[in-house]
Amino acid sequence: MKKVAIGIDIGGTNTAIGIVDEVGTVISRGNIPTDRHADIQLYIDDLASEIERVIASVDAELDIQGIGLGAPNGNYYKGTIEFAPNLRWKGVVHLTDLLAEKFPYPIIKLTNDANAAALGESIYGCAKGMRNYIMITLGTGLGSGIVINGDLVYGHDGFAGELGHVRVVDNGRECGCGRLGCLETYCSATGLVRTAYELLGTSNKPSALREVVNQEKLTSKLVYKYAIEGDELAIECFRFTAEMLGKALADFATFSSPEAFILFGGLANAGDLLLKPTKEYMEANMLEIFKNKIRVMPSELPGADAAVLGASSLVWNELNK
Amino acid sequence: MKKVAIGIDIGGTNTAIGIVDEVGTVISRGNIPTDRHADIQLYIDDLASEIERVIASVDAELDIQGIGLGAPNGNYYKGTIEFAPNLRWKGVVHLTDLLAEKFPYPIIKLTNDANAAALGESIYGCAKGMRNYIMITLGTGLGSGIVINGDLVYGHDGFAGELGHVRVVDNGRECGCGRLGCLETYCSATGLVRTAYELLGTSNKPSALREVVNQEKLTSKLVYKYAIEGDELAIECFRFTAEMLGKALADFATFSSPEAFILFGGLANAGDLLLKPTKEYMEANMLEIFKNKIRVMPSELPGADAAVLGASSLVWNELNK
Repeated sequence: MKKVAIGIDIGGTNTAIGIVDEVGTVISRGNIPTDRHADIQLYIDDLASEIERVIASVDAELDIQGIGLGAPNGNYYKGTIEFAPNLRWKGVVHLTDLLAEKFPYPIIKLTNDANAAALGESIYGCAKGMRNYIMITLGTGLGSGIVINGDLVYGHDGFAGELGHVRVVDNGRECGCGRLGCLETYCSATGLVRTAYELLGTSNKPSALREVVNQEKLTSKLVYKYAIEGDELAIECFRFTAEMLGKALADFATFSSPEAFILFGGLANAGDLLLKPTKEYMEANMLEIFKNKIRVMPSELPGADAAVLGASSLVWNELNK
Repeated sequence: MKKVAIGIDIGGTNTAIGIVDEVGTVISRGNIPTDRHADIQLYIDDLASEIERVIASVDAELDIQGIGLGAPNGNYYKGTIEFAPNLRWKGVVHLTDLLAEKFPYPIIKLTNDANAAALGESIYGCAKGMRNYIMITLGTGLGSGIVINGDLVYGHDGFAGELGHVRVVDNGRECGCGRLGCLETYCSATGLVRTAYELLGTSNKPSALREVVNQEKLTSKLVYKYAIEGDELAIECFRFTAEMLGKALADFATFSSPEAFILFGGLANAGDLLLKPTKEYMEANMLEIFKNKIRVMPSELPGADAAVLGASSLVWNELNK
């Protein structure tokens, strides 16, 4: 019998399912559209069928330890998704209770996607053996998972670790949360594009972006493409993003003095365009006592499976407690 | 035999010693000047003699459990004071090792003063039973002690919890740490006085402070005195301090989602002049998910003995582990 965990990543449009072994191999995969049903019970029915199909598709005896789920606004303590703006189910959804009616596993645990990614890093990735680190996920928004003394920080209500909504500019950019100047309005795929628009307005630098912006949708990938081709304005977009992120990381260091910041997601793959200047701005703004102590490193979770791996790691983490 | 702990608070000018029982009664007190000796060994000799005198002064059999110390830049893991700008000993001082040569107690533990205060609050004060809270000490500077899942956050190097050096204004006020815009340059006794100076310059409001500033030293106590007498400019000093602090607390909430912020020190006693508007600014700037969940409360440690109580609580905390 092969010991495995089921990892489920619930995104706004797609729900990905994976059966994962103890070393992080995804043995089988499945998925369903998240947004097909406004009725949560119908969604759970679909999800359960797909989980059963994925289990049946494996040509070996499985010893399933449990289910780990990552979802926006997921609450670890209550197993709920609460007021998630990008999901169709409104209010509070008791997700783990609903799944427990379908599956007999003793472990069915939920947390938000960034927390799941942080755990995944400690079990399958570059944070093995680290007891204090902060995961920063740079996707459409900016998520975070904070590990202190070997444990994820959930806070008194289960919602801790929302570093994307630390205000880095007073009266700064409008954020989807209704507030101004949040970190994720600068440091995320969306933030990078907003920076590009700002620079197209404020600077007179010639740039390939000036041509393409009227022909196609301006995306972070496009800014990246021109930056590696040497376009100065596109490079400046990354430099500014790195400045905002590096300064924020220096501030975060004063809180929990982590061993490392681990960057995850599309932007984190921009390598020297982002990581190197982020590290430089972080050090330049760091309180003396923390200088040259804290690493900034890219995630080692394999991109396509990262979310499912992160979710599945919730199960191993419960077993290791 | 009475179970007691020895608490020692090492300040820049004075070192206070107290013998404390399990419910927080200080049975006997002593103190020596901190700054008499540049030689740490001579200081330790003086300190040991005074501790022995204080123990001998108690007219009962004592069952001494250990020594807890609070000191600026104190490192819990290593028992060291490292590069403390306000102490005469330079570099790294191995304080607990030196004391262990003098006393046989199995517990001799050191941390910084704000961490000690945070622990004191959980053992003798208003944080009893709380597992997630943040202590903010508003003295000459701003210190912090962060408790998560019932444990103090020390970080990977033992220096976590330096929230006084979170940058709240980009290119803001010069800080003693060499950086700009740190929280403590706004929210501390010193910060309040700096705000008063700024307002005396930028505003034309009549104010009693305009008269006194040329006759005596402008202090936070003076600003407080005139504020409670209704002086508008002095009240504005507190409102501005509360705005800076409240916004910062809203940011800190995104990190660890604490049950409460506990404010300690002179400014915290300003009551409705500071606590009420701080709470209002915090809520106004809070991410939706954390609104109306987090308390802002004054410390319940008795002012004069607070530092010694905090230090002694390190001992009870070790015993409770």
